[in-house]
Amino acid sequence: MKLRPESFPEFRRHLERFIKINDEEFEQILAYFTYKKLKKHEILIQTGDKVKYTYWTRKGLLISTFIDHDGGEHIIQFANENCWITDQNAFYNRAEAIFTITCREDSELLCLSYRNREKLCAGIHKMEHFFRKKANDSFVKQQRRLLTFLTSDAGKRYDLLLSEYPELIQRLSKKVLAAYLGISRETMSRLGK
Amino acid sequence: MKLRPESFPEFRRHLERFIKINDEEFEQILAYFTYKKLKKHEILIQTGDKVKYTYWTRKGLLISTFIDHDGGEHIIQFANENCWITDQNAFYNRAEAIFTITCREDSELLCLSYRNREKLCAGIHKMEHFFRKKANDSFVKQQRRLLTFLTSDAGKRYDLLLSEYPELIQRLSKKVLAAYLGISRETMSRLGK
Repeated sequence: MKLRPESFPEFRRHLERFIKINDEEFEQILAYFTYKKLKKHEILIQTGDKVKYTYWTRKGLLISTFIDHDGGEHIIQFANENCWITDQNAFYNRAEAIFTITCREDSELLCLSYRNREKLCAGIHKMEHFFRKKANDSFVKQQRRLLTFLTSDAGKRYDLLLSEYPELIQRLSKKVLAAYLGISRETMSRLGK
Repeated sequence: MKLRPESFPEFRRHLERFIKINDEEFEQILAYFTYKKLKKHEILIQTGDKVKYTYWTRKGLLISTFIDHDGGEHIIQFANENCWITDQNAFYNRAEAIFTITCREDSELLCLSYRNREKLCAGIHKMEHFFRKKANDSFVKQQRRLLTFLTSDAGKRYDLLLSEYPELIQRLSKKVLAAYLGISRETMSRLGK
């Protein structure tokens, strides 16, 4: 089913953070994507899956989780509106998923397969530029988070979460936020949150 | 001074991890770079600097360090042969450096300015592709490291270091390795390293 450009103005604005595109180009770009709707609690990617797609969130909230050997749950990433999400290693390196991605709210996604992403980048240089810029951006954001672990600074980690996802605090339970921060509920209370 | 393509076969091989280039293209690409030699202990980037360049290591060993409020030293990144290094946030976002990058050995670098990197990517689509692939790769590697912090798995972190930089173990002191791993010398001994 062909996606209608007029239904995805936020996606166009999202691309235009890094590139300028006209109506025709946006229509061309959109043709590489498919659309998916999921209900709250539905699973998008499960540990062990082959991961064919990366997803841009039009609406909703998803969460990427890693379970360690002792059953401990660690939150890798949130994705609310305008965020991309997938199991990155599995997607880029055609490996099996080690993360589980679930919907915390009813969600609507644009899906881009690995093959289509490569085609899109090869065919439309601007999109290769977009994804390079996006990747550099994501690297720096992740490095900031890594830094708060290196320095064991949970307070800073909370501030970072707040600045990057200001409205998520309202949409997620304290338990989930603590799992993202890698701290206990008690430490979180001690931080005054 | 014009760089001679025949002096940088490793750099060409490095680019060819992701893209195919001919002699003429390699010469074109090289024209965007400058060359720099540094002695052991010399400082490449200092906290507070504006960061105009990203660097590819032809020879030597560099180390990127973050000093926290209490004077604690944390190692962000190593760069030996074939690795890129810079203060990524400062470089991409034209901000001030928060890392200090120093040479642990005499080093030789290829330097690419922000402006030239953009020109190179705009002018030679293959290079935009290269840097996109490289950025995705770096993101995944960093995510693996982040995961060892999330799960507090220092043993896994050591194994990761070993698999990514197998020969660095010989070239760096245990003190430096412990600072990269975010553990004490004692914990490192307990890991049997």
